[in-house]
Amino acid sequence: MNRTITIEEILDMERFQRLHLINTIVGYKNLNLIGTIGHRKVTNLGLFNSFVHVGANPPHLGFMIRQLTVPRHTYHNIKANKYFTVNHIHEEILAKAHQSSANYPENISEFAATGLTEEYTDRHPAPYVKESRVKIGCEYAEEHHMKLNGMIFLVGKIVEIILPEDGIDESGHLKLPELGTLACTGLDTYFEGKQIERLPYARVK
Amino acid sequence: MNRTITIEEILDMERFQRLHLINTIVGYKNLNLIGTIGHRKVTNLGLFNSFVHVGANPPHLGFMIRQLTVPRHTYHNIKANKYFTVNHIHEEILAKAHQSSANYPENISEFAATGLTEEYTDRHPAPYVKESRVKIGCEYAEEHHMKLNGMIFLVGKIVEIILPEDGIDESGHLKLPELGTLACTGLDTYFEGKQIERLPYARVK
Repeated sequence: MNRTITIEEILDMERFQRLHLINTIVGYKNLNLIGTIGHRKVTNLGLFNSFVHVGANPPHLGFMIRQLTVPRHTYHNIKANKYFTVNHIHEEILAKAHQSSANYPENISEFAATGLTEEYTDRHPAPYVKESRVKIGCEYAEEHHMKLNGMIFLVGKIVEIILPEDGIDESGHLKLPELGTLACTGLDTYFEGKQIERLPYARVK
Repeated sequence: MNRTITIEEILDMERFQRLHLINTIVGYKNLNLIGTIGHRKVTNLGLFNSFVHVGANPPHLGFMIRQLTVPRHTYHNIKANKYFTVNHIHEEILAKAHQSSANYPENISEFAATGLTEEYTDRHPAPYVKESRVKIGCEYAEEHHMKLNGMIFLVGKIVEIILPEDGIDESGHLKLPELGTLACTGLDTYFEGKQIERLPYARVK
């Protein structure tokens, strides 16, 4: 049997019941650590679960940042230094990645606090997560502020990708289950993926 | 051993290799059918994989639409009628959902073309997918056009949710694996999720 939950019932829900329902309602989400460095050279790691594709040529990605009603170190560091890294999470680093979402003060690096290791390339100043298996270097491109609540959609251009030699299959797809990349739902529930199907390009019959 | 793929190498890649790599690079994505109806009363179904959370109170979601260089029936219908539905996909309707991404002309409904069934409620005019297990009714809220390439981030307010009586656990989370909701990567590869962990809210130690 189905039930209908109306907008009026959603608005009347207990706060955490509503938060979990609305954070899980669109289905599975990706999960990545964003690495940045601030103008005082303190590094930062933040856990984000809203990455989307914003074009392949040239390659761009976008993600949501919460309202600037409190300091958002990831946002301010990207604005200050123009670069950020996006790092996939696998099971062995999940507990540390999750811990990075705790509310550390500005002078504490989540790298130091969680025990994850900074790694740098010559391409840009933002720190990668050494333990991550798939790492994406990005340059700030543009941002859009939601009129309804101040949330920010931030877009970056991909400038390099670091991954295992055998991480891509013949067709060009990343081998996500073999890489151990995790998905999430809501703010706290983590999943591995099991491939069930790859379908050919759909054409009108 | 790791390898680095630079932006110059990405831009030089064969088109489909680049498309698959960049479409899989952020990890797992959700996957939903959007149902709409146009001003000539032709219904439309489109497959989208970029839904993000845009606030829980009041509840909003957002997703990416490709450039308006060709007719985008989903976009034009939402603009004409202000409402759309978001419908989870499970394995039994996957082949039909995938087929809805074929390029049908404007006067053909993807419901009729794929054999999925329209379903309506009293709340708004957009069609739900009867066979889907989790269905979200949304009202147009706002849109943002990417300066870099014209892609559109469209935001809707959730006005109702239809789901099985036992679809939500005690904490408020949707029971996605039990509901059979699928994830995807790229444009063509489909996954089911296996929960490995739910972690408590992270606090500074």
